[in-house]
Amino acid sequence: MGAFRVEIRVMPRASLLDPQGQAVEHALHALGFAEAANVRVGKHLVLEVTAPTKEEAAVRARTMCDRLLANPVTEDFSVAVDTAGRPEGSPLG
Amino acid sequence: MGAFRVEIRVMPRASLLDPQGQAVEHALHALGFAEAANVRVGKHLVLEVTAPTKEEAAVRARTMCDRLLANPVTEDFSVAVDTAGRPEGSPLG
Repeated sequence: MGAFRVEIRVMPRASLLDPQGQAVEHALHALGFAEAANVRVGKHLVLEVTAPTKEEAAVRARTMCDRLLANPVTEDFSVAVDTAGRPEGSPLG
Repeated sequence: MGAFRVEIRVMPRASLLDPQGQAVEHALHALGFAEAANVRVGKHLVLEVTAPTKEEAAVRARTMCDRLLANPVTEDFSVAVDTAGRPEGSPLG
């Protein structure tokens, strides 16, 4: 068993309006960043998952997204697991 | 000039408490995901930046973070620019 560092990105679906992204885009334009467009805002989660293998850590993380972290109607998610796990009990890198 | 797809990750600083991350961690444990630990929650932004070069797009995106998107006291950010820009006016990939 090792503790794997998992990164999860949760974004509003491309086909849906993203009011938070529009608000950020307007604020950027108001500050003079006219070159910014199509802003979308989602969540980024970083967590440690204890699992026997990297693949199992990814499976568990995807299950967490399905059950809690992402709204299946409005959001898409992607999961990335760091290659190196660490032995249980050792300090987090 | 091309439009570059920029991904920005904004996370609470490692040295600070992250109440949202703690709330998510408690909820995961309540759902039976005992293997989850050290959950931290931040923002993920995706936007299009029109700039002459990839490097210039990254510089502009970092300036946006400094001015608006990240709180310099409580948050760290990282910026990644897609290698391929697209000519102005062509559809977004």
